[in-house]
Amino acid sequence: MWLSLRTFVGMKNCIDKIAELQLWLKNNGFGGCIIPNADPHQSEYVEDYYKLRGYFSGFTGSAGTLVVTCGKAALFTDSRYHIQAALQLEGSGIELFKSGLPDVPLYYDWLQGEVGGAPVAANAYLFSIDDWEMLANKLKIQNNSGFESLWEHRPALCDSKIYIHAEQYSGESVKSKLERVRQILRDNGAELCIVSNLDDIAWLLNIRGADVAYNPVVRSYVIVTEADCVIFTDYDKISQSVGGYFASNGILVKPYNAIADYLTDCTGRSVLFDRGSLNYSIYEKVKNCRSLVNLPLYISRLRAVKNSVEIEGYRNAMEKDGVVWVRFLQWFYGCLEEGLTITELDVMGKIRELKEAQDEFVDESFGTIAGYAEHGAIGHYAATADSNYTIERRSFLVIDTGTHYLNGTTDTTRTLSCGELTDDERRDYTLVLKGHIALGTAVFPKGTKGSQLDILARQHLWQQGFNYGHGTGHGVGHLLNVHEGYAWLRPRENGIGYEPGLTMTDEPGIYREGKYGIRIENTVLVAPHSKTEFGEFLKFEHLTLAPYCLEAINTDMLTQDEKNFINQYNRHLRDRLKKWLNADENLFLERLTYEI
Amino acid sequence: MWLSLRTFVGMKNCIDKIAELQLWLKNNGFGGCIIPNADPHQSEYVEDYYKLRGYFSGFTGSAGTLVVTCGKAALFTDSRYHIQAALQLEGSGIELFKSGLPDVPLYYDWLQGEVGGAPVAANAYLFSIDDWEMLANKLKIQNNSGFESLWEHRPALCDSKIYIHAEQYSGESVKSKLERVRQILRDNGAELCIVSNLDDIAWLLNIRGADVAYNPVVRSYVIVTEADCVIFTDYDKISQSVGGYFASNGILVKPYNAIADYLTDCTGRSVLFDRGSLNYSIYEKVKNCRSLVNLPLYISRLRAVKNSVEIEGYRNAMEKDGVVWVRFLQWFYGCLEEGLTITELDVMGKIRELKEAQDEFVDESFGTIAGYAEHGAIGHYAATADSNYTIERRSFLVIDTGTHYLNGTTDTTRTLSCGELTDDERRDYTLVLKGHIALGTAVFPKGTKGSQLDILARQHLWQQGFNYGHGTGHGVGHLLNVHEGYAWLRPRENGIGYEPGLTMTDEPGIYREGKYGIRIENTVLVAPHSKTEFGEFLKFEHLTLAPYCLEAINTDMLTQDEKNFINQYNRHLRDRLKKWLNADENLFLERLTYEI
Repeated sequence: MWLSLRTFVGMKNCIDKIAELQLWLKNNGFGGCIIPNADPHQSEYVEDYYKLRGYFSGFTGSAGTLVVTCGKAALFTDSRYHIQAALQLEGSGIELFKSGLPDVPLYYDWLQGEVGGAPVAANAYLFSIDDWEMLANKLKIQNNSGFESLWEHRPALCDSKIYIHAEQYSGESVKSKLERVRQILRDNGAELCIVSNLDDIAWLLNIRGADVAYNPVVRSYVIVTEADCVIFTDYDKISQSVGGYFASNGILVKPYNAIADYLTDCTGRSVLFDRGSLNYSIYEKVKNCRSLVNLPLYISRLRAVKNSVEIEGYRNAMEKDGVVWVRFLQWFYGCLEEGLTITELDVMGKIRELKEAQDEFVDESFGTIAGYAEHGAIGHYAATADSNYTIERRSFLVIDTGTHYLNGTTDTTRTLSCGELTDDERRDYTLVLKGHIALGTAVFPKGTKGSQLDILARQHLWQQGFNYGHGTGHGVGHLLNVHEGYAWLRPRENGIGYEPGLTMTDEPGIYREGKYGIRIENTVLVAPHSKTEFGEFLKFEHLTLAPYCLEAINTDMLTQDEKNFINQYNRHLRDRLKKWLNADENLFLERLTYEI
Repeated sequence: MWLSLRTFVGMKNCIDKIAELQLWLKNNGFGGCIIPNADPHQSEYVEDYYKLRGYFSGFTGSAGTLVVTCGKAALFTDSRYHIQAALQLEGSGIELFKSGLPDVPLYYDWLQGEVGGAPVAANAYLFSIDDWEMLANKLKIQNNSGFESLWEHRPALCDSKIYIHAEQYSGESVKSKLERVRQILRDNGAELCIVSNLDDIAWLLNIRGADVAYNPVVRSYVIVTEADCVIFTDYDKISQSVGGYFASNGILVKPYNAIADYLTDCTGRSVLFDRGSLNYSIYEKVKNCRSLVNLPLYISRLRAVKNSVEIEGYRNAMEKDGVVWVRFLQWFYGCLEEGLTITELDVMGKIRELKEAQDEFVDESFGTIAGYAEHGAIGHYAATADSNYTIERRSFLVIDTGTHYLNGTTDTTRTLSCGELTDDERRDYTLVLKGHIALGTAVFPKGTKGSQLDILARQHLWQQGFNYGHGTGHGVGHLLNVHEGYAWLRPRENGIGYEPGLTMTDEPGIYREGKYGIRIENTVLVAPHSKTEFGEFLKFEHLTLAPYCLEAINTDMLTQDEKNFINQYNRHLRDRLKKWLNADENLFLERLTYEI
């Protein structure tokens, strides 16, 4: 996911913008301000209107917080963006704090040290309840977003239209989903719940939109009671047919900003919400209600556990993407053999072209990453005309790509050998592959957490003193955010026990800064394995259908079980794709997936 | 750890005792009461005086809570004790709740459902601050321990003498340790800290006692300020020489119960403590102090990271225990070959006899578990005259044993083949061994948590749908509680990052109820592995020196790396023990540790 730097190119440079901001702080009696990259819905990716942090800092990563005091400016971002942020902040006067490294403070601790008891401004719409209260414990935080008006030429809010996500794809009616939510209300003694997560809303009402790049969501809130369901969104997003759809499902429509007034009238009621996702400004309207029930991820869990229609949809979507991969690889290796010049941008373009030819294509699920050689070591690299490398006959090309089809979302990474590899490159590829297989073939009790499983993908790298700085996997939405914020698979614990129906990625990697990167990623489904005297056990079914790069493997480092996994996967891949490929393509795939 | 049932044999049976308790509840206006197996120091094991739960219920496990209402009585305990509790509660009228199983409520949720808003009695000295406040959120809990007087013939508090743990063993003076604690006070802006964990106190003051079976601690509190250090304990525990030792180290002595008055005078001060270990009654004396600082495990961490003298002590202690193991195995297999009758109690006795012959022997670190055949499947089995099995020429004998020497504490489990094994038995032994090796050979970044590593020991069992219901490892104290409550190695996260110097166990197992149990356990030391571009990596050094049972292994199931581990371990074992064993013993060990 990447936003071109050009978005923020204007008359002013960041030094001037920060100076203006600091003047505003002084004039308004603030010691500092906090500017996250956030919208009122705690979305991972936000529409351009909310990219205030990018405007002031020039940094475009999805994660990271800008903190400005009267004398200093600092940006805090995690390991995915350390390299990118260092490049983008050059000459801005903004200090980069590489969060996650030893001795790097948390942004609020740093701010506390800088401003002490002076007031700090922030827009409470952009913080979850938990985050705001934590800030309020540390800082004299005040809800004031006056500084946002300093953004000249701020983009407008997106006016994309809502469309209906048909039941043939979603597998469950709105009525059924609403009944499940109402049962949660009853079970928790609540009369009303506020749904503010945009993926939750799209899932609940079987609607999609295009308000955020790559994320087919609709900027809105929803309130559900025993009798009513109200969506708060802009009227101009609603076509006549969508209006009819809402009416026929008993869904009332009110303007996006009307939610505040609506909630002000609810003080006598018992309100249920998720403190981790509801923003603090909305929370202020209900916090004196008769009773409050905090239920983390209560709709996200329903959404994350896919039904059989969604699962069949994924399987079909993966076949389409599998065909794209085979055709792409045939083109790619053909070009290399013929000595044609191809660049990273050519790769991105070819993949998109092949996807668009598939039935039910909606969009890419994120901007394809095609990183050749040392570009592969940049976590979220996106080639531009300036950075665009020509592929040589050596090193690795990392391709991380995904697609939204009407019946499912994909996310796959393959690392391709572009010619002769060094022993170190083959060793690294094989270590990453061994981790990918170890996790991908795990069997585990129902309720096991991602933080427990994560090590399986890292163990072989760790044996050599190697590691990677990102999580091993993330949930995958169904025609929704490809990063489904529920069942993360990473060292940090989140308390979510795995159950059948979850979809997620298995994507270890290794990044040799200035040399090359390697990542291998399948989307997998949590599926039943067995029931024994020790309980219920689960496994992963690999949904992704794309050949691994056998040429990059040092087969001496693989156990027979690991070789068996690869050979079985390849047989499965050929069987599933056969009917979609012509004879020449099938022959190519056959040659590419030889027995090891 | 096991307390004979006879401790509670008296005139009354449990039905009568519970009836008396229920009468007390009614007469005093309570709807229920909570009786944990706890002392005022949150000790894992408690002295007999505090075994009130055992008195009323007859259940003797270390973990578990008795909850009594006017009409019902219920005992909640975890999977280690499900089998034992079922046996011990038979005929008591007390309902057993097997905590950890699906749909089994937490004891306070169950009690809430039973008593609603009626008052509940409990002794606030026996609950941590966190636990008491959590109870107060759910229940109308009142600090009232009047029901404790129903215990007829209650044992007296232990009057064991304090002895000095010499610096040649502890490796650090009291002055140095106190200075480290005072630095923590300064770093946290506190003037006074309360130390209530008995292991922390013993470590801090380099003293030991015998107040709790197998745990060489002293019932006491300690308060440290910049100028003073006060120990609150019974005067009759202090010999003249210990009194002189305290005086020479500037440690004041006050009576155990005087701490309440002492703290009442501290309201103007800033107090530091650990909410997870300080009891609520003591907390009530300080909760209105000028400022309160909660610092979890602040002394436990200092104690858990062993210094070089302690580590060398462990290594020597393990050699002594290694000699005990070799001599025991020679005796044991000799008896089997000669066709002599040996029982579980014989095994326990022989092991104790061999330990007592070693220099610097203090005590066993817990009661040896010797469980033959199906007894091996009972988590904390302790043979009694009634249960005592004769070893036959089949199945497994699980031996879990540990020793306190002046220079270190050991904890080792070996599972011995007693004759012909079935294929299932060999498969299970090998799966457990593979897990033990996978964890024991792990390399991991500094700061990795036990909850991440735990799966390495389970993965091979899980592949078959097998599992075990206990954690994989626990910290090991240095002449202190063999369960050192700091760096647990289990699925549940505790936030503790691993660092060099921690000592812990690696002990996966499998338990086939009614058939046999298998557990394999080494005590290991967290040690440096490497520093690379990806950070600092750690590994485990195996401290335990005891032969695995090679005869029980299905070697076809081992990888070459796993075989190499066993062969290297055996070479190391022979090298280290050679000097302590005679020629015959060395020959026996040589034969027992053949190359696989």
